[in-house]
Amino acid sequence: MSQNIYDQQEFFENYIQLDRQVRGLAGAPEWPQLKAMLPNLDGLSVLDLGCGFGWFARFARENGAACVRAIDLSEKMLDKARSLTDDENIEYERADLEELRLAENQYDLVFSSLTFHYLVNLPTLIKEVSKSLRPSGRLICSIEHPIYTSPSKPSFVVDEETGRQFWPLDGYQSEGLRSTNWFVEGVKKQHRTMGTYINILLDNSLQLTDLVEWGPNEEELKIHPSWG
Amino acid sequence: MSQNIYDQQEFFENYIQLDRQVRGLAGAPEWPQLKAMLPNLDGLSVLDLGCGFGWFARFARENGAACVRAIDLSEKMLDKARSLTDDENIEYERADLEELRLAENQYDLVFSSLTFHYLVNLPTLIKEVSKSLRPSGRLICSIEHPIYTSPSKPSFVVDEETGRQFWPLDGYQSEGLRSTNWFVEGVKKQHRTMGTYINILLDNSLQLTDLVEWGPNEEELKIHPSWG
Repeated sequence: MSQNIYDQQEFFENYIQLDRQVRGLAGAPEWPQLKAMLPNLDGLSVLDLGCGFGWFARFARENGAACVRAIDLSEKMLDKARSLTDDENIEYERADLEELRLAENQYDLVFSSLTFHYLVNLPTLIKEVSKSLRPSGRLICSIEHPIYTSPSKPSFVVDEETGRQFWPLDGYQSEGLRSTNWFVEGVKKQHRTMGTYINILLDNSLQLTDLVEWGPNEEELKIHPSWG
Repeated sequence: MSQNIYDQQEFFENYIQLDRQVRGLAGAPEWPQLKAMLPNLDGLSVLDLGCGFGWFARFARENGAACVRAIDLSEKMLDKARSLTDDENIEYERADLEELRLAENQYDLVFSSLTFHYLVNLPTLIKEVSKSLRPSGRLICSIEHPIYTSPSKPSFVVDEETGRQFWPLDGYQSEGLRSTNWFVEGVKKQHRTMGTYINILLDNSLQLTDLVEWGPNEEELKIHPSWG
């Protein structure tokens, strides 16, 4: 069973104050680039893995999706999602993605935002996703970048000589558990290299069509200097 | 015109002492993984971009390739390659890869080892490569990893508290020229993100089938502790 950090009260109370929870998709810096990858949603059957408050599920329906199955492990997230949703074609469901089994040929779009880096058994999930996609169906997903999940001490360091900030990268090739402090201690993530992520997709009959590594543009850096 | 660092006497004299030049492919740590990606070479028409001393060209012929066209910018490298080769089906040729134009449907395998990160105009070269490949032809190439080309100060730093080494990553999203010291000052490389490299391939009708990020295994770390 996966760690269910989102149902810990202290974590949850902090998490819901993030811009991406308060403002929804518009508060997520990477949303414009994810959105640009989406197909025309008209009439599509959509699966959302790690749906959180359901922001994407509602977006998909508002933009023409026929139905959305939205899955999360956190009761608190699902309760909030249901309270924000008035749409019988969005089905919220509690499930552990480590153990999810999917029927064949069900979905035109599988979407997952910042969820896969929590999963130990990602290859099995991707196998299920691949099977569940219809011909010409797509998986569109975001993860924390391997450069971000890798370090033993994941916080910026200032070079005393030049004043430049750098990211103290170590352990890149050492895949597996990273226990980090994010609102609370001991949030568990799985570090994988970029090559491993990509080969998990390729090994499960998926074809890579785009890869974007999010970074702030100049305008975003002016508004949010701390993203630099 | 590309920088021709390999023809500078001081650089060349140091470069030829590298294990990968003295011992050839067996001296290149990444060779086992590149080799594992190769198709059966029997009867193939091969193009080698940045052939250096011709180690791969000779390997390909010894393993059944019908012919190899091997290109490099450096006269010194080509002179040495020719002196090591006695095979009329290997054609060595001096050309600038920034300006290379290729005929359609010529090659079963295009190979390139640690060359693409020197090129400003890589998209044009990949367009030419894609055009020159026969149906089911393959491009197999290695580059310096973007994590390696990115930093403004590319050398390991020791964390005084833990004694761990880390790599001071900065400028990852800032693509373009990196001027580094490698035997001599001012060796020019081009930094690109992983996403940019992959999309250059995808944008030119190539399909990604494998991505390996080389790192030392435990056995290699015992023999070469400095690779850790």
